[in-house]
Amino acid sequence: MITLYQQHDSGNCYKVRLVLTHLDRPFRTVAVSSFDGSTRRPEFLAKNPIGKVPTVQLGDGRFLAESNAILLYFGEGTALFPDDAYDRAKAYEWLFFEQYSHEPAIAVRRALSVYPERQATPERMAHLLEAGNRALAVMERRLGDTDWLAGHAFSLADISLYAYTHMAADGGYDLGRFPGISRWLMRIAATPRHLAIEAAAPAAG
Amino acid sequence: MITLYQQHDSGNCYKVRLVLTHLDRPFRTVAVSSFDGSTRRPEFLAKNPIGKVPTVQLGDGRFLAESNAILLYFGEGTALFPDDAYDRAKAYEWLFFEQYSHEPAIAVRRALSVYPERQATPERMAHLLEAGNRALAVMERRLGDTDWLAGHAFSLADISLYAYTHMAADGGYDLGRFPGISRWLMRIAATPRHLAIEAAAPAAG
Repeated sequence: MITLYQQHDSGNCYKVRLVLTHLDRPFRTVAVSSFDGSTRRPEFLAKNPIGKVPTVQLGDGRFLAESNAILLYFGEGTALFPDDAYDRAKAYEWLFFEQYSHEPAIAVRRALSVYPERQATPERMAHLLEAGNRALAVMERRLGDTDWLAGHAFSLADISLYAYTHMAADGGYDLGRFPGISRWLMRIAATPRHLAIEAAAPAAG
Repeated sequence: MITLYQQHDSGNCYKVRLVLTHLDRPFRTVAVSSFDGSTRRPEFLAKNPIGKVPTVQLGDGRFLAESNAILLYFGEGTALFPDDAYDRAKAYEWLFFEQYSHEPAIAVRRALSVYPERQATPERMAHLLEAGNRALAVMERRLGDTDWLAGHAFSLADISLYAYTHMAADGGYDLGRFPGISRWLMRIAATPRHLAIEAAAPAAG
């Protein structure tokens, strides 16, 4: 049985629930959080010395971290990852784009907006808005005339970018400016096996 | 023939020269730079709409961006990428760690230190020093008693992290505090086919 150590409303953790659900892999979840200090306790640091979620424990007891690395581990060799080497490279591109250019703006501005204990200067919020809109414009360029981010089918790249993009309005981003992204979000929500972020994991806990 | 659009002293571009050299893949380089505005010109934006280097043009004319995605494209199925699925996942972990936790601190502090036209507040420099030292401590935990970052052999993970780690002193990081990292840097510099960052690409330009 796979165990996902997670904070339920984290987009990075949601990605892992999505990929496991799409692949029909049973898993259980264990709640840990940077808010209550549980990611800093010795028993969690023994599982992941960086003290970050998501952290996954595989059936054999070994651990994995980094949301997109976890996606690749489970998704390699499945219909969620392209067969073609160039399409696969484009999926990798999107996964690194997500961690370098998208998440540090869009997820961070959402956290600063929805968790009142976090604080930021108006200058920082303005900078994050601009950086996030730049990332959304990059996605729009692709999604304006194409259904999926990498290759010709729904893939790990779509799962990874969906997580924080679908919550971008919480961080003050106006998705109405990005019609291609808006259609893509609806396309993903309509996939078979789709799981909403607020839903409990489908497998027994 | 592979064409690498690059800024020669960028660690992200150096990674691509390293992987192509290790794999004995001939390539030519074309200099572009954010400093002279050439990454913002229409002829470059037609190749990579994000306007970033490295950008690679493959023999069939198609383009790839994101340094670690380029590494994976060329390295998949070679001795530079583990056969074992779990070891491969650990390599992915390191590649995402590099882009999320390492490069944004260590590469950025180096750029702010060596390019006098870049400016940062003392608070930002202090924050980057702390974040970079945290990233180096994560690497040291692994390299204190293991030769390579992922699995049991030199891999894409080592190439990716080598690029900016070996220049960290330029950014004010004290590698003397990290003996495992220091030994690993020497181990990589001693690999057959290793190419120093200042060296010209080995293939005809």
